[in-house]
Amino acid sequence: MRKNDVLHSGEPGETWKLVDLIHSNELSFLMEAHDALSAAVAARSGFRGLWASGLSISSSLGFRDANEASWTQIADAVERMADVTSIPILVDGDSGFGNFNNARLVALKLLQRGAAGVCIEDKVFPKTNSFVGDRHHLADVTEFCGRLAAIKDAVPDQAFVLVARTEALIAGHSQDEALARAHAYADAGADAILIHSRKSSAEEILAFAGAWQNRRPLVIVPTKYHRTPVSEYRDASISTVIWANHSMRAAVAAMRAVCGRILREESIAGIEPDVATLDEVFGLLGYDELAVAEDRYLPAAPDPRTGSPARPRPYPDAERWR
Amino acid sequence: MRKNDVLHSGEPGETWKLVDLIHSNELSFLMEAHDALSAAVAARSGFRGLWASGLSISSSLGFRDANEASWTQIADAVERMADVTSIPILVDGDSGFGNFNNARLVALKLLQRGAAGVCIEDKVFPKTNSFVGDRHHLADVTEFCGRLAAIKDAVPDQAFVLVARTEALIAGHSQDEALARAHAYADAGADAILIHSRKSSAEEILAFAGAWQNRRPLVIVPTKYHRTPVSEYRDASISTVIWANHSMRAAVAAMRAVCGRILREESIAGIEPDVATLDEVFGLLGYDELAVAEDRYLPAAPDPRTGSPARPRPYPDAERWR
Amino acid sequence: MRKNDVLHSGEPGETWKLVDLIHSNELSFLMEAHDALSAAVAARSGFRGLWASGLSISSSLGFRDANEASWTQIADAVERMADVTSIPILVDGDSGFGNFNNARLVALKLLQRGAAGVCIEDKVFPKTNSFVGDRHHLADVTEFCGRLAAIKDAVPDQAFVLVARTEALIAGHSQDEALARAHAYADAGADAILIHSRKSSAEEILAFAGAWQNRRPLVIVPTKYHRTPVSEYRDASISTVIWANHSMRAAVAAMRAVCGRILREESIAGIEPDVATLDEVFGLLGYDELAVAEDRYLPAAPDPRTGSPARPRPYPDAERWR
Amino acid sequence: MRKNDVLHSGEPGETWKLVDLIHSNELSFLMEAHDALSAAVAARSGFRGLWASGLSISSSLGFRDANEASWTQIADAVERMADVTSIPILVDGDSGFGNFNNARLVALKLLQRGAAGVCIEDKVFPKTNSFVGDRHHLADVTEFCGRLAAIKDAVPDQAFVLVARTEALIAGHSQDEALARAHAYADAGADAILIHSRKSSAEEILAFAGAWQNRRPLVIVPTKYHRTPVSEYRDASISTVIWANHSMRAAVAAMRAVCGRILREESIAGIEPDVATLDEVFGLLGYDELAVAEDRYLPAAPDPRTGSPARPRPYPDAERWR
Repeated sequence: MRKNDVLHSGEPGETWKLVDLIHSNELSFLMEAHDALSAAVAARSGFRGLWASGLSISSSLGFRDANEASWTQIADAVERMADVTSIPILVDGDSGFGNFNNARLVALKLLQRGAAGVCIEDKVFPKTNSFVGDRHHLADVTEFCGRLAAIKDAVPDQAFVLVARTEALIAGHSQDEALARAHAYADAGADAILIHSRKSSAEEILAFAGAWQNRRPLVIVPTKYHRTPVSEYRDASISTVIWANHSMRAAVAAMRAVCGRILREESIAGIEPDVATLDEVFGLLGYDELAVAEDRYLPAAPDPRTGSPARPRPYPDAERWR
Repeated sequence: MRKNDVLHSGEPGETWKLVDLIHSNELSFLMEAHDALSAAVAARSGFRGLWASGLSISSSLGFRDANEASWTQIADAVERMADVTSIPILVDGDSGFGNFNNARLVALKLLQRGAAGVCIEDKVFPKTNSFVGDRHHLADVTEFCGRLAAIKDAVPDQAFVLVARTEALIAGHSQDEALARAHAYADAGADAILIHSRKSSAEEILAFAGAWQNRRPLVIVPTKYHRTPVSEYRDASISTVIWANHSMRAAVAAMRAVCGRILREESIAGIEPDVATLDEVFGLLGYDELAVAEDRYLPAAPDPRTGSPARPRPYPDAERWR
Repeated sequence: MRKNDVLHSGEPGETWKLVDLIHSNELSFLMEAHDALSAAVAARSGFRGLWASGLSISSSLGFRDANEASWTQIADAVERMADVTSIPILVDGDSGFGNFNNARLVALKLLQRGAAGVCIEDKVFPKTNSFVGDRHHLADVTEFCGRLAAIKDAVPDQAFVLVARTEALIAGHSQDEALARAHAYADAGADAILIHSRKSSAEEILAFAGAWQNRRPLVIVPTKYHRTPVSEYRDASISTVIWANHSMRAAVAAMRAVCGRILREESIAGIEPDVATLDEVFGLLGYDELAVAEDRYLPAAPDPRTGSPARPRPYPDAERWR
Repeated sequence: MRKNDVLHSGEPGETWKLVDLIHSNELSFLMEAHDALSAAVAARSGFRGLWASGLSISSSLGFRDANEASWTQIADAVERMADVTSIPILVDGDSGFGNFNNARLVALKLLQRGAAGVCIEDKVFPKTNSFVGDRHHLADVTEFCGRLAAIKDAVPDQAFVLVARTEALIAGHSQDEALARAHAYADAGADAILIHSRKSSAEEILAFAGAWQNRRPLVIVPTKYHRTPVSEYRDASISTVIWANHSMRAAVAAMRAVCGRILREESIAGIEPDVATLDEVFGLLGYDELAVAEDRYLPAAPDPRTGSPARPRPYPDAERWR
């Protein structure tokens, strides 16, 4: 209900599909979300698509980004995001939660829960966060291609986007290895390639883009190399930039600051100007629709003091049929 | 995947929709299911539709039929059923899990999880099972019509069937009250009426059907008045009969018998002929599809003794791009 | 509430702990359960412990026994079983749902949900059912010992039983390999060893038991070699026999028979004598406790005809404080 | 595991129980949390207890504070909070999710999931947020006392705190009515009383406290009357102040600001100083424990270039038993 009637009124008028964002000639941006609230904020702000980050969802669940959260917990989180926004969601599917069979099952379920696409990476289950430690062994290429092909064969919706993410550079392999993997993944059915790096400069990403020659849309995650201006990505014909975890990190910083001040000041008066009003929260989540619906669907409650209803009954009642 | 490729091969060739079953001139039958396994058995047996019974699902979850199970637990159970069958599922939505707002939310979620329709009854939350005790107070007609209208307004799929169930006769009210309620519910948008009785004869049901004159399809649940031959329902132009809890009760009786024998005999040899084979279970749940898929999507595992893979790699590998 | 007050009245008076069952000098038996209903039936029948079978739970969820069900879905199913029984539950934890970290997380969660122990097997994630196909490659011994040690270190309850299951014989390895693995698993902290076989005779199991010399309690699953009399297991000082999937298979056979008859006969009159009564189901699930509690905690509902409550208000009301 | 070993090292050394916080002579403070991340932040900041707010959890799930979220979704959220913190959690149980039977079931499940107490309010299901609209009809006193008594009778843990919240003032009733209700709730077993107000001054709360004379600990939620200094609550012998939704509101404001800037600037470079670092997130969620555990429980991965493991195997291996 809210999906169609309410929240979207607060979002931009145009409807964007993930498949169009990925293939458009413009540089597209996906904003991280980790729960319905962060999704609603990003959509209302004007973003055209969301990245349901595995790290961020895991963090909001108190899990570490090492496949501690079960695939159904991730799917449940994605469903909540999809229910309050109309912009498309690309889901971080980690390494697919197991083998080809787990990967296709998860993809089907994510589609059912409202996702517009899934990204899986060439690691084995359980994964380790790309920015943690050095245990980054890649999956066998053929086995990983099997996961990709199984997803494409299983998902009935042609518009569902499958992104293959290679961790080759993060695992210390060469550009050649990264490119070879990307080509194999495209052959196996990937609709786009995510090339990941944890260098603080975009150099290796741009080199990859140059060699890739836009065979399929390229997606990047400039968390570490955040100083590179996006004009360079436009010049390199990159398709999509993911801002991968910044709403979660903004929330942590703000909650830490507010907790600290409230503890010190033994008061919330000081922080009131810095936090969202309840009305803003109510506005984000469609409380106005609920009020209208109560008027429409609930009989007027009798006034507890007079006993008489405040307004006529809105529905055909049973009397005339007796 | 299994939905399309596998299990359906074991089900009858024709596809039935719930909306067609309800409106067809033939008497239709819905078989109770309470989990994926009972759903798969009923579908494979040849039933054309399922009744996701609140009592049975609650029982399989160890809950009493008094809204102890949360609405999301019910939705999860329905999803599992829908995933392994291709026949339509009418879900017992109890009284809608609260007011109009809960009812429409649950209906939307059941649609998303694969249900073909929902039935809600004119009681208040939490409900009591119709066959237990005497606390059967009906909901206010107008308020209940609000629940029905809210569901019809919220659910985008026109083929999603909304059944309104009246407990008027079970609560000790008159035929006139039952009819007045049924008409009000049809006015409010119900696609069909379920008239419930706990008498051991079908008399009051047939009297209702006579007076109703088929304004909307009529659904009945002859759990207590099971001796009436279905020919009488055909003669009364009843649309659909629900066999409401018999798979669950068959399972209980069989498990009790098997547990008793195994305990006494300290052996399973005696009961082997009376239980399904593992192969039958594997057949019901598409293990053959998994075997085929493993051949297709998994690289041949190297023989642990020789180290060499048993068959060629099925996917384009990365070598040619290096 | 039901755990203490109700259902247990229908179970044997003595309370058994899993740790005692495993260590007792008598041969113990665990009966498979896959949902709360099958758990309640087994407990009421007199079994002293349950086996929460991965195959059976997966089947009731419509999943294949290949780690399609997420670990949280398994934990949810176990919680439902534990809530309606007082006998201990050993949970089939497959291979631990990933690496050591997943295994210890799952064990902690199973403990929280009411399990008395967990069994993990020396395979890799995702697993394949032991009776399906030939892809049965064992986990590296050291890596698997890490899973066992991590569980023992993480679980605070000393009485929580950790069973290590070796699939060495099923994977085609020698008795020596099976024994070496069992010893390594005991060294790593396993409280008991489950030795599995899919031969139709108990020969290799009994040979293993002879060589093992009861270093730790031995658990067996005679699904395939069901003709061996249990006296041989007593003679071999085996600790515990698991009847691994027979309630589920009994349910499938019974539901298939009932579905078939109802379809053919277009009636439930014929099958009534073969299914459990509703009263039996209500008895299994504590409906009597609910009736007593309603009398105790609910204000008497006013008689809808007279408007007066049927009995005095049971609680101190607000009047005297005004 | 993390509960004992890791996160707590970042929390204050003393362990606080909710029952002690409520009964201590000092004024206590509970900080709102809505997911594991906000719970971890509040605990690390130094708060001694948490308020699992229904409004905030609902918001993070994208639901409105009108019992749209099911009770199991709330219980799941509470479990995630409890798993990453060692400070006690008082859960906002709304009106108990139905009648006495739902209320006691939810309380038992919250205890199992790690909650230290539950607060229920004298409204009917489904509830409306106290700050939204005017449909605030109170529950019948006797019926609500039945909910309280049922919870106390059902929950086995004497330290589990039951807080009864009266919405009498919010629903427009008199101080006398509020007091009469509070006394009746204490008689029925409530361990503490939460008196709620939506006035912008604390006047009616302080008047209530004066008349109540500390019969049971008093809990307040100064969301609207936030300007009153807490010294007045100390003077009034109030037990506990709940800061009810400020982490959630801080997160919304921060995410909105960050989304806006990233959209405008097409860059994250500018907001980097304002968001938490990934290392801070990793620190909050025990990534260091995982690294230590990997060293302990995982065999050294063979170096992909040399094939040799980087360090000796930590576990007794099978070799010596062969």
